[in-house]
Amino acid sequence: MARVDLNSDLGESFGRYTLGLDEQVIPLVTSVNVACGMHAGDPVVMRRTVKLAAEAGIAVGAHPGYPDLQGFGRRNMALSPDEGYAYVLYQVGALAAFCRAEGVKLAHVKPHGQLYNRAAVDGPFAQAIAQAVADFNPDITLVALAGGELARAGKAAGLHVAQEFFADRNYTDEGTLVSRTQDNATITDEDFAVARVVRVIQEGSIESITGKTIDIAADTICVHGDNAHALEFARDIRRALTEAGIEMRPASER
Amino acid sequence: MARVDLNSDLGESFGRYTLGLDEQVIPLVTSVNVACGMHAGDPVVMRRTVKLAAEAGIAVGAHPGYPDLQGFGRRNMALSPDEGYAYVLYQVGALAAFCRAEGVKLAHVKPHGQLYNRAAVDGPFAQAIAQAVADFNPDITLVALAGGELARAGKAAGLHVAQEFFADRNYTDEGTLVSRTQDNATITDEDFAVARVVRVIQEGSIESITGKTIDIAADTICVHGDNAHALEFARDIRRALTEAGIEMRPASER
Amino acid sequence: MARVDLNSDLGESFGRYTLGLDEQVIPLVTSVNVACGMHAGDPVVMRRTVKLAAEAGIAVGAHPGYPDLQGFGRRNMALSPDEGYAYVLYQVGALAAFCRAEGVKLAHVKPHGQLYNRAAVDGPFAQAIAQAVADFNPDITLVALAGGELARAGKAAGLHVAQEFFADRNYTDEGTLVSRTQDNATITDEDFAVARVVRVIQEGSIESITGKTIDIAADTICVHGDNAHALEFARDIRRALTEAGIEMRPASER
Amino acid sequence: MARVDLNSDLGESFGRYTLGLDEQVIPLVTSVNVACGMHAGDPVVMRRTVKLAAEAGIAVGAHPGYPDLQGFGRRNMALSPDEGYAYVLYQVGALAAFCRAEGVKLAHVKPHGQLYNRAAVDGPFAQAIAQAVADFNPDITLVALAGGELARAGKAAGLHVAQEFFADRNYTDEGTLVSRTQDNATITDEDFAVARVVRVIQEGSIESITGKTIDIAADTICVHGDNAHALEFARDIRRALTEAGIEMRPASER
Repeated sequence: MARVDLNSDLGESFGRYTLGLDEQVIPLVTSVNVACGMHAGDPVVMRRTVKLAAEAGIAVGAHPGYPDLQGFGRRNMALSPDEGYAYVLYQVGALAAFCRAEGVKLAHVKPHGQLYNRAAVDGPFAQAIAQAVADFNPDITLVALAGGELARAGKAAGLHVAQEFFADRNYTDEGTLVSRTQDNATITDEDFAVARVVRVIQEGSIESITGKTIDIAADTICVHGDNAHALEFARDIRRALTEAGIEMRPASER
Repeated sequence: MARVDLNSDLGESFGRYTLGLDEQVIPLVTSVNVACGMHAGDPVVMRRTVKLAAEAGIAVGAHPGYPDLQGFGRRNMALSPDEGYAYVLYQVGALAAFCRAEGVKLAHVKPHGQLYNRAAVDGPFAQAIAQAVADFNPDITLVALAGGELARAGKAAGLHVAQEFFADRNYTDEGTLVSRTQDNATITDEDFAVARVVRVIQEGSIESITGKTIDIAADTICVHGDNAHALEFARDIRRALTEAGIEMRPASER
Repeated sequence: MARVDLNSDLGESFGRYTLGLDEQVIPLVTSVNVACGMHAGDPVVMRRTVKLAAEAGIAVGAHPGYPDLQGFGRRNMALSPDEGYAYVLYQVGALAAFCRAEGVKLAHVKPHGQLYNRAAVDGPFAQAIAQAVADFNPDITLVALAGGELARAGKAAGLHVAQEFFADRNYTDEGTLVSRTQDNATITDEDFAVARVVRVIQEGSIESITGKTIDIAADTICVHGDNAHALEFARDIRRALTEAGIEMRPASER
Repeated sequence: MARVDLNSDLGESFGRYTLGLDEQVIPLVTSVNVACGMHAGDPVVMRRTVKLAAEAGIAVGAHPGYPDLQGFGRRNMALSPDEGYAYVLYQVGALAAFCRAEGVKLAHVKPHGQLYNRAAVDGPFAQAIAQAVADFNPDITLVALAGGELARAGKAAGLHVAQEFFADRNYTDEGTLVSRTQDNATITDEDFAVARVVRVIQEGSIESITGKTIDIAADTICVHGDNAHALEFARDIRRALTEAGIEMRPASER
């Protein structure tokens, strides 16, 4: 039976600052990626978020990012691969401690923001990230952009890799995301986007921005919980998946 | 046979900033407490320090502190017990990840600076710290001021506790440290200090500042590697322990 | 003619994190206190906030806090007076730069959170804070808790001091705030609170929590812009002040 | 009469961490660039450093950097020009406050590390940095790499610009620095380096790495105080300048 994972970034609040509708997005997903205190989140928030996810019985993963709270991990930083390795290992370990205290396993790791983007295109950097995860625990699932360098590096490091597909983004002929600097980066027709999600899971292919059919893996789909509209879109995807008979299950469950 | 642990705080460098003669103190001790990135240390330094200790075959512990790099964890902060719990669990997990990657176990946890001092006198706060360690791994040894609240809380939480004795500090009749605000807080006669270390291990008692004999545990002695003089003092203690036939071994080895 | 200042804490957003309804509170007040990047705010937010206030033509002040973003400056920190001096001078200078770039003057300084609370009761610390302000610019108005140590220290340092009154808090017989640890710290009857504001400006006295009449200065009243209810309360105060013929003007205007 | 400025980066210590031989380098230079708390330095260190420089009677400048203490401002960060503007204005204002409190003027601004390097080659970013300085105070001297984008942007913004020459670096035919990724980036023959400094001040030209004579400005020379060797090199330069009858004076003095 066809299956897919729905994942969402959670635990992005920090001290007095609240971000994201965590309680409302949890019932809609099968996996959550919890911020680890470098680009977002703090120890108190991490504990609360892991607890929430544990109670909901969904898969908990680490969401490490660049050490740049002010930039929310979205500004590129010229970290060396060794620095990337150390920062990811640090964050994964910190989140794993909260999982252990709550009696759940750390199921997956998904890099955040520019750490994710850079690891998708920079081979040596991707290898360092994948190695950090493998050195911590080779049973962890690595979530990475479908077809990118991190997916490749994860497999080479012996990790189980879940390839991520973006429901609302257009793809180039080469299977990479159309850059956000271009007008047609994002799909605005949500019905089309939802239908495309079903198709990519069933057939493993989509049409690129030029209309060419391209192969693409979609083990997991990222949904957002920033606002009411995002939650509605997530609900639409769930409905379509249910109607199509596609099972929703954590990618980390093998 | 009488035994004792010699421990030292390591990995306190940060980015471009170097602190401590780590390479030189490692051969002199049986356990090291590695800073975890909140009051000192960073992920790159943590990795390097754990590697050094692993190669030397000595016991590796976490040295969590207050989230105050600028104050080096030495300025008190009004954290709640819940915040203390979360900050300690976070730091212990982060360091444990580097231990795992280097193939060594995280043997002990010793709080740093004002986190250590406050946990020695504040019961509910001490309980939160001890619980964080126990929730992470009940096999970890907790290093705490001899006779203080954290030692008590650690035992109550089911942890193995190593009580720490300070070679160069005077003690009150109640077995607490004479405050640094008083003139006679520190012992300046180093020969006397060294002889007292041997005695406290062999007999479990010392003379207080008023001359009264008081019972005190000394499972582990803290030595410093800040400068050449500190290293010489550590060597003097080792020599005296060897001559007295006292075995030096990690407190975490049971 | 009787007059009073209405002040509000603004610019508390940080990077991706938004806090406070700044645009909506600005038309309701005569002075704003802008966070300076240590407990809240960042350089981009500071620039935007000063611009907003400058366009509205209201008085701009600095709102320095403890260096603790995670605790929002609300956790006490054992800073020395020298550290307090340096941290306040640093933040005041940083905010003054944005004022200069926008062509407005830095009119006042009001410490935030625990920095405010501690300076209200700790004489030597209050003196250090007041001296930092005076050393930067002796023409700046210092906003301080009515009757507290900072108000005293500010006058001793030759500064113009605006004493702050809290509309929704009960006062002890000694004229200090009833602690938030007590049940009756806050006034829940908003009509009573509004009437009391008018009275304290007109008569310079209120009834303490025990019913005793106590003298108290009220040069400026703090209002909040956290949510719709707070905005409504601010509007109620403005209406009552207008009806009572009390002029609203920045306390820094002499 | 020929003249030149000798500048050095100071105040790079942070909390418990000490960096640089500030007391020893001060007598050797005519201008100091003081770190402003983002890549190095803290408010207490800034105060002490400005005091030291004020007592020595040398010119005090701000040395703003990227907000990355862990990377010491040496890792590139993808800040937008608007973020660059705000971060520089913030840091310049903070340092200016300490100057004001010590009764000296803020004479110049020199960006640090990758902020300096990026501003030397990225036009729009350089314009934002120059504008921040000009908006703070158009009388401030901007120190920039000779011939680079920041020097150009500073002049366009109406600022006095001091072009900086590097005593120990080789230059390309285009007058830019040979990259540190190449073997011959640095001059190892110190006698040659010293002689070249004298020549570039007297003649306004040097030989490039290929032997071609290129024009280059040298209003100020950066010397370092990291270790005894660096201090000796600075003394050699001073001696040679004195023998050549070249006056040493702050570039900010016009």
